[in-house]
Amino acid sequence: MPRASSRIVPISGDGRRGEVRWLDNTKLPGEEVYVSTGDPARLIAAIQRLEIRGAPVLGEAGAYGIAMVANNSGSRREMFLNLKRYGDRIAGARPTAVNLSWGAQKVQKVVRDELRKGTDIEGIKKAAIDAARNIQMDNIEATYRIGEIGKEWLSDGFTVMTVCNAGTLAADGIGTATAPLRAAWADGIEFRVLVTYTAPLYQGARLTAWELHRDGIPVEVITDNMAAYFMERRKVDAVWAGADRILGNAGRETGAVFNKIGTLGLAIIAKELRVSMLVAAPTSTIDFKTGATSDVHVEQRHSSEVERLFGGAVVVPRGVAALNPAFDCTPPQYITAIITEMGVMERPFTPEKFRMLAVDHL
Amino acid sequence: MPRASSRIVPISGDGRRGEVRWLDNTKLPGEEVYVSTGDPARLIAAIQRLEIRGAPVLGEAGAYGIAMVANNSGSRREMFLNLKRYGDRIAGARPTAVNLSWGAQKVQKVVRDELRKGTDIEGIKKAAIDAARNIQMDNIEATYRIGEIGKEWLSDGFTVMTVCNAGTLAADGIGTATAPLRAAWADGIEFRVLVTYTAPLYQGARLTAWELHRDGIPVEVITDNMAAYFMERRKVDAVWAGADRILGNAGRETGAVFNKIGTLGLAIIAKELRVSMLVAAPTSTIDFKTGATSDVHVEQRHSSEVERLFGGAVVVPRGVAALNPAFDCTPPQYITAIITEMGVMERPFTPEKFRMLAVDHL
Repeated sequence: MPRASSRIVPISGDGRRGEVRWLDNTKLPGEEVYVSTGDPARLIAAIQRLEIRGAPVLGEAGAYGIAMVANNSGSRREMFLNLKRYGDRIAGARPTAVNLSWGAQKVQKVVRDELRKGTDIEGIKKAAIDAARNIQMDNIEATYRIGEIGKEWLSDGFTVMTVCNAGTLAADGIGTATAPLRAAWADGIEFRVLVTYTAPLYQGARLTAWELHRDGIPVEVITDNMAAYFMERRKVDAVWAGADRILGNAGRETGAVFNKIGTLGLAIIAKELRVSMLVAAPTSTIDFKTGATSDVHVEQRHSSEVERLFGGAVVVPRGVAALNPAFDCTPPQYITAIITEMGVMERPFTPEKFRMLAVDHL
Repeated sequence: MPRASSRIVPISGDGRRGEVRWLDNTKLPGEEVYVSTGDPARLIAAIQRLEIRGAPVLGEAGAYGIAMVANNSGSRREMFLNLKRYGDRIAGARPTAVNLSWGAQKVQKVVRDELRKGTDIEGIKKAAIDAARNIQMDNIEATYRIGEIGKEWLSDGFTVMTVCNAGTLAADGIGTATAPLRAAWADGIEFRVLVTYTAPLYQGARLTAWELHRDGIPVEVITDNMAAYFMERRKVDAVWAGADRILGNAGRETGAVFNKIGTLGLAIIAKELRVSMLVAAPTSTIDFKTGATSDVHVEQRHSSEVERLFGGAVVVPRGVAALNPAFDCTPPQYITAIITEMGVMERPFTPEKFRMLAVDHL
């Protein structure tokens, strides 16, 4: 009997009520709290506080956010003004993942096109919510395809390691980096997962371990600084990471992966200890416009996230600064393969290979 | 004017009162709490809970612990029985650092020799406390020598990184890995220190940042998974680590360093990104008896330390296991140099070089 995945709905949009609803990631694993709002400022705050997070789900949040703004407008003129007022703020609520602005802009374009065409207000609202739903459906479908394509990289007896949460909470469906794990598990493949903490917000422990444990997959949590120990002592076969942005056309930096802080270190250790470094991401994560890694803005989050352990004990002495970059950039030479819904790419990564994979998205 | 180091007394023994007193490391940086006890069980608990920690200070704790047991005995016969009862328990309170059992055994030997010689009870008590004091004085002196020898590895404008706490709290005096930093700082050299968290007990943030900030040295705290990011983005010149045990006579594994979990990962990343990996430790840390790294017992601590963030939020979902190895082993090929109070050793590390350095200790 195939083993099923748990059904988690990280985000949804209600066109009639003009609301967006999400599972608050900051409360997990202690509490499963769903939050709804019709207020763009509340949605933006939720994105910034990481109640909603993960590159593909941020794409859905951007899309549903714009659809919500459109739905809560009383006239075509108000809709135009509301989009002007909130469009860029939603798209720019967080800077590093390409998906948020991509999703927001995609729905904005739909609304603008319909406004230009003279479509009546109900028609525009419907078009906006349909566009957001399509983005979500595409995301979900992509995760299942990533699962089918990526499961070939797992075998019985494997031990794999994960970083942060590239699961359903981050990518909808069955997640990105978790998708091959779930697909292999459904096929009866037996393996174990070492989930890294991922300080300072512990999304590995709190979210990935929670998701996989719900599905019955054997998981164990380790702190970030234990990764090398376990890669060496237990034969770890692969590190599975998601991606917030992959450069698809950046000369020698083509294939560079921006992902949660810590990915670079794991990739370097993995290479040295001969562990595969696998990145799973939908093609919507590929950035063909940015020509150099130095042009990508890496979000620096508030030092308080590092000073206090997830709202608890203060571990940084008073008067001492704490630094908090949220992402790092892993150069292509440390990545074994990139698994997308359109296929697998192995090194060397070239713009031509990326273009072939991501034709639909260009 | 030379810049001074703050005076921190991590541990002391009062011969007359038969007590050991220590600065409770688990309460820092929030509170500076000193604890005294005459009860061996309380001392053992303090060692196991990491109220007292760090390889050289554990040597002092073992020594003062035995001296305390001797001092609290009413007769020579009681002293003999008390040592039999508590000697091994104190020496074995934690397994990985060689210093704890070394310090305890050294004072035990003094007491046994004096008992055998027929020395009167007050004379034995004095000999025991003197032996413990000598161990402490030797430790302190070693840290100042490590500082003088190691400061050559720092220059103006450097950025260095630390792991865990190899400071005064761990090694007395001016610490081990912190000693060269303090000696260079006293000479007016300007540099910056990136202190890594060191989960799950955050001794980097809580203890090293606290110590160095008291001395006016510029420190910034980062989480463990940010190390690679900062090694790459800021030109980090060196990682400074302490050691709990260095194998001095282990064939091809000679020079392997057992130290706080995370050291191995930093060493691998440092090598890849061309950052020096420097280990500072007194020669008492060198183990000439163990012939293979696989013969060293790596302490596995309780999973609750990983499940709850330093007594605060639970980040590991219910039902999910958490792993908690306290140390890792860095093979010699990742270490640039080992700085001891007797001199510096660079690769290749050989038993001959270790023997020349550690003649006194053999």
